[in-house]
Amino acid sequence: MNFCSNCAAPVELKIPSGDDRSRYICDSCGSIFYSNPKLVVGCIPEWEEKILLCKRAIEPRRGKWTLPAGYLENEETAAAGARRETLEEAEVILGEIEPYALFDLPFVSQIYFMFRGPMVENRFGSGEESLEVDLFTEAEIPWDEIAFTVIKETLQRYFRDRAAGRGFPFQMGTIFVKPFRGHGG
Amino acid sequence: MNFCSNCAAPVELKIPSGDDRSRYICDSCGSIFYSNPKLVVGCIPEWEEKILLCKRAIEPRRGKWTLPAGYLENEETAAAGARRETLEEAEVILGEIEPYALFDLPFVSQIYFMFRGPMVENRFGSGEESLEVDLFTEAEIPWDEIAFTVIKETLQRYFRDRAAGRGFPFQMGTIFVKPFRGHGG
Repeated sequence: MNFCSNCAAPVELKIPSGDDRSRYICDSCGSIFYSNPKLVVGCIPEWEEKILLCKRAIEPRRGKWTLPAGYLENEETAAAGARRETLEEAEVILGEIEPYALFDLPFVSQIYFMFRGPMVENRFGSGEESLEVDLFTEAEIPWDEIAFTVIKETLQRYFRDRAAGRGFPFQMGTIFVKPFRGHGG
Repeated sequence: MNFCSNCAAPVELKIPSGDDRSRYICDSCGSIFYSNPKLVVGCIPEWEEKILLCKRAIEPRRGKWTLPAGYLENEETAAAGARRETLEEAEVILGEIEPYALFDLPFVSQIYFMFRGPMVENRFGSGEESLEVDLFTEAEIPWDEIAFTVIKETLQRYFRDRAAGRGFPFQMGTIFVKPFRGHGG
């Protein structure tokens, strides 16, 4: 950030009075600009004993497998965002979805909030951001080809919970690893 | 947003190629500016059978009671943010906290993520944003003086879950009501 988005004067990075963190401040019009973490919402789409993954058509991690997920938009609920991303990336309509996990990715200032829930029918397709979409049993999961640590962690906890047979208690965790090539989680 | 924060040229609100929503775009340097929901993190601090509330010293809803909560900061985990807000607003050190609820406030593009957990000792005080801080039994909760609908909803579900005696399963909900005087939830 170089210039004030309100009045176009140059901004400075400094701590506002009464605050304890540096923010971009415009001395000309008095605007203070806050930057906050972004929320990524996604889902584990379930069909019978299988779950759905998408092969990424875009960088970062093009060609690797992931769950449908993306940035929550303004005026959208978390569940609506997860349903939208699943429709866009996998052409899948979800039934009732349940909150499943929150993961912190402090190194990229992102929070992932993941749902799980059934596909309404056995139909899916490759959205613009996917090269390929498919259903996988646990044994078929391409563990070495999963795009992001946070997705691998989500899937590991999911299959562990499913095997335990006591439902899906809400999960929380922090991803500490550095991202691949400076992007994503 | 009037000007590009990168190059100071005027921005326009339009749909980028490959997108389906309007964003502020700079035709001069090509920057696209995304605005996304903000995450508010907070906690229900517990001491024996009581919970802690803060009387707000700032607008909106000055003089009304609330739970410690505030915007998550960059590079912070959700739990660390909830602990920081509880320390800042109520001078309380929390023990182990557990995720409890997510509430969508789409009318203000906010997501509240609330924890619950014990205070490490029976000590609290009024931080800069609080006029007063106190512990309340369920019967003492000032229901008509709670600052925000999302906080009232959090407390109602909490006492209902506590009465049921089956632990605190993760809660999710959407607040649809309009905010008071155009602010908060």
